[in-house]
Amino acid sequence: MNPSTRTELRRLPQRGSREWRTIIRILDAGFLAHVGFCIDTQPFVIPTLYGRNGDKLYLHGSAASRMLRELEHGIAACVTVTLVDGLVAARSAFHHSMNYRSAVAFGTARKIADPGQKVECLRVISEHLIAGRWTGVREPSKQELDATTVLEFTIQEASAKARMGPPVDDEHDYELPVWAGVIPLEMRAKPPVPDEKLMERVVLPECIRRFAARFSAE
Amino acid sequence: MNPSTRTELRRLPQRGSREWRTIIRILDAGFLAHVGFCIDTQPFVIPTLYGRNGDKLYLHGSAASRMLRELEHGIAACVTVTLVDGLVAARSAFHHSMNYRSAVAFGTARKIADPGQKVECLRVISEHLIAGRWTGVREPSKQELDATTVLEFTIQEASAKARMGPPVDDEHDYELPVWAGVIPLEMRAKPPVPDEKLMERVVLPECIRRFAARFSAE
Repeated sequence: MNPSTRTELRRLPQRGSREWRTIIRILDAGFLAHVGFCIDTQPFVIPTLYGRNGDKLYLHGSAASRMLRELEHGIAACVTVTLVDGLVAARSAFHHSMNYRSAVAFGTARKIADPGQKVECLRVISEHLIAGRWTGVREPSKQELDATTVLEFTIQEASAKARMGPPVDDEHDYELPVWAGVIPLEMRAKPPVPDEKLMERVVLPECIRRFAARFSAE
Repeated sequence: MNPSTRTELRRLPQRGSREWRTIIRILDAGFLAHVGFCIDTQPFVIPTLYGRNGDKLYLHGSAASRMLRELEHGIAACVTVTLVDGLVAARSAFHHSMNYRSAVAFGTARKIADPGQKVECLRVISEHLIAGRWTGVREPSKQELDATTVLEFTIQEASAKARMGPPVDDEHDYELPVWAGVIPLEMRAKPPVPDEKLMERVVLPECIRRFAARFSAE
């Protein structure tokens, strides 16, 4: 990690962290990233799934995707992952806030050309999303691999921010008869919905059950 | 709306839409945006809360926030809102996907200077988050208003993308004995946690109850 002004935490430094363990905990808890890049002076922010291995994030998609076609040139990119933990209702409008964890990673990407390496990167993304799924499904054909672009984004620099806990009000506001507290929010899975065209006697695999449970735990 | 190549939907145009009603439905269902901007060629993607009024999105934060200080100069910005609806498990690795709705809005922001207008914009953000909360809390003091920057982002152009429904597999893959289906995901509220320092006899207000219910409905 190479700290610069990009990750300078200007305000509330007590909410910020450049600690790598904190950053990867957020990256590993999430699965949706918002990827930013610039074409001339125009920013684009595109949501995408990802996987992580060390300081590399793997992105994939159609070979026709504009985002991937721009990023594969090695232009500067920003990958942000945000986990929402709750809304914080204070006694004053001013102190309302959100409980969250976010990681902002800067770096550049390169295209993975080697088909074997490409499959390995797709496996990393798949395992990041639903651990154990990869071995149970049909693997990519040559044609499918050719239609897929895989990028390896190297995190050159990153920072994390988080807020947790109850509202913090001004001292004199604690005497106001206003309800204050936290409304916890979380991503939850509902029971898996089997495809109507499922073959007979195909049961819900353990990996899907575990995935759903991961988002049902407290 | 002024369509250009920024919102050209390159792939899967059946998943894309420039219809305004579709876009605002996504913006109104979400409350967290990822805001992109460029400093020189470096993109930044920062999560932030927002409110909407017509084709304006309101953003706010500390007057010291780098994001707000950059955006108030009227540089090009991209505001993206993504709602995750589920993971799609197909019979092949290739056809795995995500059910989601996203809106990508391009435009520029201006700083709201007038204190009265500023309060009104903060009310819009507050009502977007928790409808009915604003009238029940202490309103911003002059000092708090001075410490807060409010930006009005005008949507010049926007597009929406969505995927829903079951996996779509290759014809010959339907004969594989592989479980396929959708794992629905949603943002859920858990019961509100009152602040420990709450005054006696202060009960949970209706607006918080409604907010929590909004995220508990099927």
